[in-house]
Amino acid sequence: MRWEDLGDEPCSVARTIAVIGDRWTMMILRDCFNGSKRFDQFQESLRISRAIVTDRLTLLVQEGVLAKTLYQEKPLRYEYRLTDKGLDLYPILISMFRWGDKYYAGDGGPPLLFRHKTCGHDFHSVLACSVCNGELNPREVEVRAGPGLKPRRAQKK
Amino acid sequence: MRWEDLGDEPCSVARTIAVIGDRWTMMILRDCFNGSKRFDQFQESLRISRAIVTDRLTLLVQEGVLAKTLYQEKPLRYEYRLTDKGLDLYPILISMFRWGDKYYAGDGGPPLLFRHKTCGHDFHSVLACSVCNGELNPREVEVRAGPGLKPRRAQKK
Repeated sequence: MRWEDLGDEPCSVARTIAVIGDRWTMMILRDCFNGSKRFDQFQESLRISRAIVTDRLTLLVQEGVLAKTLYQEKPLRYEYRLTDKGLDLYPILISMFRWGDKYYAGDGGPPLLFRHKTCGHDFHSVLACSVCNGELNPREVEVRAGPGLKPRRAQKK
Repeated sequence: MRWEDLGDEPCSVARTIAVIGDRWTMMILRDCFNGSKRFDQFQESLRISRAIVTDRLTLLVQEGVLAKTLYQEKPLRYEYRLTDKGLDLYPILISMFRWGDKYYAGDGGPPLLFRHKTCGHDFHSVLACSVCNGELNPREVEVRAGPGLKPRRAQKK
């Protein structure tokens, strides 16, 4: 399989990875959730080439994860903001924070702390079942074929 | 920044991405959660070179995400199983399923359905606060510096 074929796999993880499964793309998204909006902010934060930033932003805009809007006319300057589709990536990002905090924080402790404004407490994230609200454990989840299991390419024919 | 520097960033997302933030690594992990354990299963599922599979499995074993155990002596054959640290990646994976189902399932519907054995119902995953159990929304979360914000490199000096 080639990278560009991932989006055609009959699997929602593969399709997600086809869009966000690149290290710099994920790092740009992290910056977006931390409030970055402008090209130079991404580049300064990540210290990578302009070409890589341009390439990843272009894909994210194409896929509707970020919206590109003009904020200055002379010279032309654009902002990149998370769309609703982009904001829906939050569970993936916050679950990465949680895993990194648990296994890589070291003696220094977690680099960032998260407070849930709704309840007023520092929290960590928990993945819950939409029906019973219980915490999800992979051993308690049964997976079966769904209606969309046929490859998308085959469906198009 | 170079890819290999991501693990030294004072950020739990960067450190997580340094370990699992490669497309094929994520696809191998998806297969692990779907029950694959053997080299040939990964290679057949992903249709990628043996060298890529070897490279990604080696990293995951080094990082303690997978445990490599001998299951056959002649010829030597190994199995790769998720450790507890690996199982803790479940929230990231299941959140990717959710996002892919929501935005890329198309008319065919989701390729897979998930049933929570504990409550007996099909579910989707919800990100919840560990304190109040309320659903987490990025707009309701306040982030501040934690004790580990200093770069790890600086701490080592």
